[in-house]
Amino acid sequence: MTKTPYQDLEDRFRRMDALSGALNVLHWDMAAMMPPGGVAARTEQLATLKTLRHAMITDAALPDLLDAAEADAHLTPWQRANVAEMRRHWIHDAAIDADLVDALSRACAACETIWRKARADSDFPAVRGALQDVLTLTRRVGEAKAEALGLSPYDALLDQYEPGGRAADIQTVFDDLGAFLPDFLDDVLARQAAAPAVLPLDGPFAVDKQKALGRRMMETLGFDFDHGRLDESLHPCCGGVYDDVRITTRYDEADFTSALMGVLHETGHALYDQGLPKDWRGQPVGADRGMSIHESQSLLMEMQACRSREFLEFAAPVMRRTFGGSGPAWEVGNLARLYTRVERGFIRVDADEVTYPAHVILRFRLEQAAIAGDLKLTDLPGAWNDGMRELLGVVPPTDREGCLQDIHWFDGAWGYFPTYTLGAMTAAQMFSAAKRADPVIPDAIAKGDFTPLLAWLRASVHAKGCSLGVTDLLTEATGEPLNAAHFKAHLKRRYLDG
Amino acid sequence: MTKTPYQDLEDRFRRMDALSGALNVLHWDMAAMMPPGGVAARTEQLATLKTLRHAMITDAALPDLLDAAEADAHLTPWQRANVAEMRRHWIHDAAIDADLVDALSRACAACETIWRKARADSDFPAVRGALQDVLTLTRRVGEAKAEALGLSPYDALLDQYEPGGRAADIQTVFDDLGAFLPDFLDDVLARQAAAPAVLPLDGPFAVDKQKALGRRMMETLGFDFDHGRLDESLHPCCGGVYDDVRITTRYDEADFTSALMGVLHETGHALYDQGLPKDWRGQPVGADRGMSIHESQSLLMEMQACRSREFLEFAAPVMRRTFGGSGPAWEVGNLARLYTRVERGFIRVDADEVTYPAHVILRFRLEQAAIAGDLKLTDLPGAWNDGMRELLGVVPPTDREGCLQDIHWFDGAWGYFPTYTLGAMTAAQMFSAAKRADPVIPDAIAKGDFTPLLAWLRASVHAKGCSLGVTDLLTEATGEPLNAAHFKAHLKRRYLDG
Repeated sequence: MTKTPYQDLEDRFRRMDALSGALNVLHWDMAAMMPPGGVAARTEQLATLKTLRHAMITDAALPDLLDAAEADAHLTPWQRANVAEMRRHWIHDAAIDADLVDALSRACAACETIWRKARADSDFPAVRGALQDVLTLTRRVGEAKAEALGLSPYDALLDQYEPGGRAADIQTVFDDLGAFLPDFLDDVLARQAAAPAVLPLDGPFAVDKQKALGRRMMETLGFDFDHGRLDESLHPCCGGVYDDVRITTRYDEADFTSALMGVLHETGHALYDQGLPKDWRGQPVGADRGMSIHESQSLLMEMQACRSREFLEFAAPVMRRTFGGSGPAWEVGNLARLYTRVERGFIRVDADEVTYPAHVILRFRLEQAAIAGDLKLTDLPGAWNDGMRELLGVVPPTDREGCLQDIHWFDGAWGYFPTYTLGAMTAAQMFSAAKRADPVIPDAIAKGDFTPLLAWLRASVHAKGCSLGVTDLLTEATGEPLNAAHFKAHLKRRYLDG
Repeated sequence: MTKTPYQDLEDRFRRMDALSGALNVLHWDMAAMMPPGGVAARTEQLATLKTLRHAMITDAALPDLLDAAEADAHLTPWQRANVAEMRRHWIHDAAIDADLVDALSRACAACETIWRKARADSDFPAVRGALQDVLTLTRRVGEAKAEALGLSPYDALLDQYEPGGRAADIQTVFDDLGAFLPDFLDDVLARQAAAPAVLPLDGPFAVDKQKALGRRMMETLGFDFDHGRLDESLHPCCGGVYDDVRITTRYDEADFTSALMGVLHETGHALYDQGLPKDWRGQPVGADRGMSIHESQSLLMEMQACRSREFLEFAAPVMRRTFGGSGPAWEVGNLARLYTRVERGFIRVDADEVTYPAHVILRFRLEQAAIAGDLKLTDLPGAWNDGMRELLGVVPPTDREGCLQDIHWFDGAWGYFPTYTLGAMTAAQMFSAAKRADPVIPDAIAKGDFTPLLAWLRASVHAKGCSLGVTDLLTEATGEPLNAAHFKAHLKRRYLDG
């Protein structure tokens, strides 16, 4: 029994998926478990596995197999979508040679290590050389992929994270949002100043209680602990593989609210992974539909569902019981004010949903310039601070609170940042569609029942894998392509009318 | 600059080592971290990585490179030893084809999962089919390697774990030991019956205190937490890689002594890994010298050093402080009796050092017969019980306490068991040599100072990597090849004269 070209491709991509899964577990381990002295051996492991994965996808047999599978008239629609994803991966990966993959993997590992110290010391010059190495290699990747894809280098990098995403389209929706936000922010801050002050929740909040609360809330949202874990790491993340999803958070004994919301955010990511189509495990079409959709799932849970008045009605008594809290600070109204507080701040990951887009717009602007060669790294700290002044009206006092704050560029993720705000807009659009489709959703959330919401997400998003493109997926799910209207409406409702 | 054949081989084996390191981390994760639903994806990852590793070592270029490197007159002695190890790995791995590697990996993963339930249910027939699959594939591996190595199938399997080890030589030392032990055991039990009864240590012993004690003792022995971790798993083990050594144990709130001694045992393994020659990281010659030497390092710490009167003099007050213990049960004399209690039991991992060899001799006998095709798996439970009656005078009431107790065969480790008792004899021989070389060792241990002992082990064993064969390593370190005399002398001193 010889295999058809399509079957041969399925076998090859299943092995590549296993290799990627191994890489994911090793990355999670590095963040959550690995002792500091393990970094050299781990760097070698990651680089070796990436090189092997690259060798598998650039195997000389692939082009003919892809051509033959694309010409196969007997494939089902999902199989055809699978081949299209295989082609997509092949174009991206075959565009760059093994030496570049290896060099970039090592440069990122080295730069990330230097960055950790440089950030702690607020010393950008200490990491600039290592970042230049990463940027130079990333630009080479961008140029090679640009040629293969017929795109600009930035769009080619963006396409890795956001399939079909183009800077010009993003600019259009960001311009829409950018025109709306500054005045809106002024209005929100004025309204907030006139509202009752947020009463502080007095700690300390023991870490083991925070963990128990996090697990309880993960279960409420629908996380399956038979197929995942919750751990700690410096940089909260969601890793692992579909059937073994590893989320992490960090705890602050003085404040349980940020770890809790971080857990709910990562749970949104995890639910997407756990809900991917079981029949397509290990195949490209069985994977998630890229970063903006992935981020939409975390932000839908964190921002849309779990900062809503309904959720806090359910959660407030649970919080009070967990920590023995009582009094007006623990009432729903105060918790809602706490969880929707808006502030012009320096740090993206601490930003509220109103100011967050400004952080992303700044990074989107700067990374496009850096990839185009129009921004020198010596000018990055200054350009960062200028942008912060223009977009948010504040200037970080140190580079630690400025251009050193995010791991992404130092770890080689260029073209990634816009997906955060695309995700926020997508989340608003989806949550609105979900509530239209099933009006019981808000009341159910108020009772701690996420079943109706999760059912809609499973059917409309998770189970689709990447059988559809981003725009088709969103249009089928919500009835319209991506636009800023739902996000703006959500912000107005929550921050001006609420 | 073209690479010499030797340099080319170094690069290739460094990548293979990185792949093996990744496999080790994934195995550790599976034991200590993975949720149950992750098993299917992990099985795929492990099989894929093993197949890739196999493909790297069976690359068509290897035979010529090895020939050329062996003919290179400019190599240093360590480089020559490195090439000899490369050749050894190549012979073992090239003897079997990729399909067999893959099939065995999957059969082991499937069988291990079934075994966990079958052991819990004490239902050998439930796992017999899966074990037959593993055995059939293992016999095929044994036959293929036998042909490549010019050995019997059993010796070929044994050689994977114990380089140069041969069943006939092992039989000779086991016969020596087997002739000594039965009468000796009677004497020990008679003497023990006449001694004061062991007073129980009353718990419960909180797990967090047990963990703290374990960590404290690991540090005392010399474990470097910058390059390793302590975690929990059902089956205590030592995994990871030289610069990132992961040991695990399991805790029982009713009894802290077994987890503690387990930690000290695994720490012995870990110190070996952490002490391997830094200049040869990632190269075959930089690895440990096989299983009997590895086990000797754990048993030297656990059995020779840490059940000694000297160690307990240091440890008893630490234990008392940790758990708030007081009274005669916590005196050194009682703890020494507790830690040297001898009993005819069913379970190997719970066995004392006097009865342990009988457990191994039974398994050695049965696995040789199974590999030779002289023992059918339907007859295994009966043969097990007959052997227990003959060797130890007890018969397990259930298969859970009989042939289902150990993971090894179900996980594909055939030819492994004799290394435990070889390790016990090697440990006695080495500890005796270490004390002759540096007589301060026992007094230092009594003060909680393992520096002199570790210095001897580092220089005489750890830093050698596998630049020497097992026999040469042991002879250089102790002045004589392996024999049972030191082990017997140790047992007599501790159990009859002590």
